[in-house]
Amino acid sequence: MTDAPRTRLTLRLDFGPAGQIGPGKARLLEEIGRHGSISAAGRALGMSYRRAWLLVDEINRTFHGPAVTTRPGGPGGGGAALTPWGERLIHLYRSMEVAAMGAAAGSIAELERELAQGPAPVPAGEAPDD
Amino acid sequence: MTDAPRTRLTLRLDFGPAGQIGPGKARLLEEIGRHGSISAAGRALGMSYRRAWLLVDEINRTFHGPAVTTRPGGPGGGGAALTPWGERLIHLYRSMEVAAMGAAAGSIAELERELAQGPAPVPAGEAPDD
Repeated sequence: MTDAPRTRLTLRLDFGPAGQIGPGKARLLEEIGRHGSISAAGRALGMSYRRAWLLVDEINRTFHGPAVTTRPGGPGGGGAALTPWGERLIHLYRSMEVAAMGAAAGSIAELERELAQGPAPVPAGEAPDD
Repeated sequence: MTDAPRTRLTLRLDFGPAGQIGPGKARLLEEIGRHGSISAAGRALGMSYRRAWLLVDEINRTFHGPAVTTRPGGPGGGGAALTPWGERLIHLYRSMEVAAMGAAAGSIAELERELAQGPAPVPAGEAPDD
């Protein structure tokens, strides 16, 4: 199945005045968890420190508890870490993506059959089932 | 239930090089169906004619058949109409949204309980179940 469809589904949730969450914020949280630093996470996503910090601030204001905590930096800059709620938020977001992909599978299959160029190719070197 | 949660879920599907579809294109198709005109649909969405036309062109190139057909205009400009495939595309997109919302309902409920400001209010004059 080297020509398996590679459709990517992304979700955005808009909570009205409370805020919203989509793929950009989810990836930023994941990169913060990986790097332990807002600036390193921003760099990994090609985002300025200011932009990354503003997004973290938005996420932290959207919910009761913060998703990211920071500690003051010395000469090398401070660190950042996900809170348990931050970890949970990522888990919920990714679970919703998987559930939505499953629920939409039949429609996605129909759309893929209608694509002018056929499904996107599997990138070289990637496992077929990945 | 005047404080019913008003979380809005939107989907984006990326088909790789073939193209993508998200809420903007879906609404544009719906407005074209409503107005019978690309320019009127664009106006209804606060979008320039050029922008609306480019999006329609993208949609028409993404799939085997066109979603929108146009006819040459006289002094008053031409008209546009959805093809059966265009109608089907809207139906599939909206069905996927409903299915995704159902599949993500538990996670959305958990997120809503954690919102700092509580759920968004129901707009005045809108039916509670709308």
